[in-house]
Amino acid sequence: MNKSNIGLIGLAVMGENLVLNMESKGIRVSVYNRTYEVTEKFIQGRAKGKNIKGYATLMELVDSLEYPRMVMMMVRAGDAVDKIIDSLIPLLSPGDIIIDGGNSNFNDSSRRAVYVESKGFLYVGTGVSGGEEGALNGPSIMPGGSEKAWPFIKPVFQSIAAKADDGTPCCEWVGGGGAGHFVKMVHNGIEYADMQLITEAYSVMKQMVHLSNQEIGEKFSEWNKGKLQSYLIEISSLIMKYKNAEGESLIDKISDTAGQKGTGKWSVINAMDLGIPLNLIASAVFERSLSAHKDLRCEASGIYHRVPDTFSTPDISEIHDSLYASKLISYAQGFELMQKASEEYKWNLNFASIARIWRNGCIIRSGFLNHIAESYENYPTIKNLLLAPYFKEEVINALPAWKSLVSKAVLAEVSVPAFSAAINYFYSFTTERLPANLLQAQRDFFGAHTFERVDRPKGEFFHENWTGEGGETSSRNYNV
Amino acid sequence: MNKSNIGLIGLAVMGENLVLNMESKGIRVSVYNRTYEVTEKFIQGRAKGKNIKGYATLMELVDSLEYPRMVMMMVRAGDAVDKIIDSLIPLLSPGDIIIDGGNSNFNDSSRRAVYVESKGFLYVGTGVSGGEEGALNGPSIMPGGSEKAWPFIKPVFQSIAAKADDGTPCCEWVGGGGAGHFVKMVHNGIEYADMQLITEAYSVMKQMVHLSNQEIGEKFSEWNKGKLQSYLIEISSLIMKYKNAEGESLIDKISDTAGQKGTGKWSVINAMDLGIPLNLIASAVFERSLSAHKDLRCEASGIYHRVPDTFSTPDISEIHDSLYASKLISYAQGFELMQKASEEYKWNLNFASIARIWRNGCIIRSGFLNHIAESYENYPTIKNLLLAPYFKEEVINALPAWKSLVSKAVLAEVSVPAFSAAINYFYSFTTERLPANLLQAQRDFFGAHTFERVDRPKGEFFHENWTGEGGETSSRNYNV
Repeated sequence: MNKSNIGLIGLAVMGENLVLNMESKGIRVSVYNRTYEVTEKFIQGRAKGKNIKGYATLMELVDSLEYPRMVMMMVRAGDAVDKIIDSLIPLLSPGDIIIDGGNSNFNDSSRRAVYVESKGFLYVGTGVSGGEEGALNGPSIMPGGSEKAWPFIKPVFQSIAAKADDGTPCCEWVGGGGAGHFVKMVHNGIEYADMQLITEAYSVMKQMVHLSNQEIGEKFSEWNKGKLQSYLIEISSLIMKYKNAEGESLIDKISDTAGQKGTGKWSVINAMDLGIPLNLIASAVFERSLSAHKDLRCEASGIYHRVPDTFSTPDISEIHDSLYASKLISYAQGFELMQKASEEYKWNLNFASIARIWRNGCIIRSGFLNHIAESYENYPTIKNLLLAPYFKEEVINALPAWKSLVSKAVLAEVSVPAFSAAINYFYSFTTERLPANLLQAQRDFFGAHTFERVDRPKGEFFHENWTGEGGETSSRNYNV
Repeated sequence: MNKSNIGLIGLAVMGENLVLNMESKGIRVSVYNRTYEVTEKFIQGRAKGKNIKGYATLMELVDSLEYPRMVMMMVRAGDAVDKIIDSLIPLLSPGDIIIDGGNSNFNDSSRRAVYVESKGFLYVGTGVSGGEEGALNGPSIMPGGSEKAWPFIKPVFQSIAAKADDGTPCCEWVGGGGAGHFVKMVHNGIEYADMQLITEAYSVMKQMVHLSNQEIGEKFSEWNKGKLQSYLIEISSLIMKYKNAEGESLIDKISDTAGQKGTGKWSVINAMDLGIPLNLIASAVFERSLSAHKDLRCEASGIYHRVPDTFSTPDISEIHDSLYASKLISYAQGFELMQKASEEYKWNLNFASIARIWRNGCIIRSGFLNHIAESYENYPTIKNLLLAPYFKEEVINALPAWKSLVSKAVLAEVSVPAFSAAINYFYSFTTERLPANLLQAQRDFFGAHTFERVDRPKGEFFHENWTGEGGETSSRNYNV
C-alpha cells in the first residue's frame, strides 16, 4: 500500500479545502480530526472516491506517511497547536516535519520552531491566505521556520499555491523562526487597511455624492480596470451590485458591526514594539472597534444628532485618488514594518519575493504588488517604499485630489479616518522639521530628559535649567 | 534610637527628591542605593543635616525600619524590581509592605502582587507623576495592589502628595493588582496626546499664521487663563518665550527628534487588547516614532520637496478650539480605556477620584479634570465621557472652528495627525450607521464570516452565497 505524502490535522473549512486542493494535484493525503465523526463525514462526503485516507488516531495518521513525514496542522491558533505538537513528538522520527498552517502568532511560531528543533524535528509555521475559496483553488502560502524542511514541502506547497499571471507559484520560502506567520500577519494588517479604505470610499460616494448601490458598484468595477485593480475592489463591486433572492440590495441590510480576530491588532502591537508608525492599519483596527460599539454609537448619535452642513460634492476622481494614495501609504508602512522586523529578528526577508507571492491567491492580491516588487529590485537598499520613484510619482499626482477630498469630508462631517491618517502621515514623513522640538523642550522642562540641538552633532545631549531653579541633574529614572 | 518610618531604595533623581519631600513632612526615612557611593554622596550632600539615614546593605536598611516595615523601590522598571523583591523577601516579617514607585508595567505589578502576597507580605505598585520637581514638592500618587497596605502608606503618601486647590491630597487608593500602574500608564498616555496636540497648535500658529515664538508663547499664556489652563500649556508658554544665556530663542535650536520610554506605547497595546479605539494616544506615539526617523524624513523631504499652496489662514480661535475639542476626545478615550480595564480586571476603579488625584502634582494637571470628576459623579453609569452634558456642549461649540482648522491644515499640507484623528473619531462615534456593513459583506464574501442584519435581532448570523458557487459552510477556522 502506498504511503501518503502528507498528513493533515483539522478538518474545518480551510483544512478540508487544502486537502482537496492537494489531492487534485496528485498528492496523497492522510487526514485526522479530533472528532472522528468529522473525518468520517468528510471521507464519505467531499472526499469520496478521492485519494484521501482518514484515520481515527494520530498514531495511525503518522504511520500512514512516507519519510520524512510531513504533518500539517490546520487548527485553531493557541493552546491546541502546542497540545498537538506534544502529541506528535513521541510518534515522529528524526527529520520529520511539523507544519502549522493556522493563524498563529509569530512569537508562538518562533518559540515552537526552537522547541521542535530541540527534539530533533523540523518545524514550519506557514501563512495560508485566500479564505476557503483560496484554500481549495490555490492560496498564497508564506512558509517560515526550519529551512531544511523547504526542499520537502516546496513541491507540495508550490503545486497547490495560486499562480501569478506569469505562472510563478505564490509560495516561496520566507525566513527562519516565525517569519512565515509574521509576514502573514502583515498581510492581514494590510488587508484591514485596504478594507477600511474601501469602506471610506463607499461612505463618501454614498453620503457626499449620493450614488446608489448600483452606481457605487459600477465605480468599483471601473476602478478594478485601473490602478486600483485588486480582488477586494472586485468583490466590493459585486457586493454593491448584489441583490439577494428576495431582490433586496443586501448591502443595505447588513449590520455595520465589524468583527476582528487578532492579526490586525497584532500588527499594530508589533509596530508599537518596533517603533514603526503604522497608522493606517491602526486606524482600521480602531474603526472596527468603534463599529462594534454599536449601542454606544446609537446613543451618541441621538445625543449629538449632528445635521451635516451643506458641503462641496467631491469628484469621483478625488475619491479614487484618495483611495489610491492612501493605499500607497499603507503598503509603504506595512513593508517598512517587515523591513524593521527582518533586521530585528535577523530573518533576511526578501521583500520583492513577498510582494510577488501576494500577487494571487490571497485577499490583497492585485497587480499593484508588481510595482512593489520592482521597487525593491531596482532599489534594494531603499528604506521606505515612498522613496521609490514609482511611489513618489503616484503620490504626487494624487495629492491635489487627495487633500481636496479629505478637506471636503472633514467639512461635511463624514468620517474618513484612514484617508486622514494617511495624508497626515505623508505630510509628517516628508517634513524635515516637525514641531517635536517643542515636545522635547517640554520633556526637558518637566523631566530633565535632555535634548539634542540642530546646531550640534547628533548624540550630544543638553539640559536647560528653564526656570532658573532646581538642580543640574538629568533624568535617569523618570519615564514618560 | 528611633526607627525610620519608611525605607527607600534607589537614589536617582526621583528617589532622592521623594526622600527629601518625605523628610520635609517629618517622616523618618532610611535610604539605600546599589552603589554605596551614591548613598554617601546623598547623605553628605542634599540630605545633610536632615533626618535621613543611609545604609550600605538591604539588611541594615530593613532593620532600621519600624513595623510593619514599608520599603519603597524607586529603581528602573524591569528585572531590577524582581531582583530587589527577591532580596527583600528573606529580610521581611509577615505584614511588611514592599512598594514599587517606578514606572513598571501594570502586568508586572499584578504578577508581583500575587507573588509577594503568596509569601505573606503586602505589595503596592504605585504611579508617581510629576517629574523631579513633583517628586520634591508634591507629586500625584496612584497606589494599587494589596489594599491592606493602604492604612499604613496613606499617611505617608497623602502628606507628600500635591494638594488640589481645595486642599485634597492628590493621592487615593486606586484598586487591586496592577491598578495603580495601569492608571499611571493611562495618565502618561494622555500626557503623550496632550503634548502632541500642543505641538500641532504650535506648528499651525508658526506655519499657517506665521507668529513668532514670543507671540506663540503669549497665546499659550492667554489660553492658560481659560479652558485650556494646564501645566503643559503653562510650560509651553514659558518655553516659547524662553531665551537662553546667549539670548537665543532656544526652541529653534532644539532638535525635532522625540524620545519615548514606553508608557504611551503600552497604553495603545492595552487598548488594542481591550478593543478600545484609543486613536489620539496612538497618533502621538506614531508621531514620536516619525519624529525620531529624522534621516528618513530629511531624505523624503528632499525627494518630494513639497511647496505648500496658498491657503486660508486660520483664526487663532480655531486653533484654540481644535486643541480643546481634541483634548476632550482624548480624555474621553483614556477614561474609556480605564472603564474597560476596570471591568476586565475587576478593579472597581473610581473615575471621579482618579480625575481628582490628577488635578495637581502630575504632568497633565489642570482645572479641566474637575469637569471629568463631576461628570462621573453626576452620571455614574455613563459609558463614555462624550455622552456627558458638559462634554457634549463643549464639543458642539468647538465643532465649527475645529473642522474649519483641520480642513485648512490639510489643504495647507501641514500635518495635524492628532487633530484629525480626534475629529474623525468624533464623527464615527456619533454616527449611527458606519460603512462597516461593506466590510462585513467583504468578510462574508471571502471568508464566510457571516454577518448580522439590521432588520433581524442581534446575535442572529447570516451567510450569503455571493457568487452562487461553493458550499454552505461558514468559517470556523479562518481568521482575518
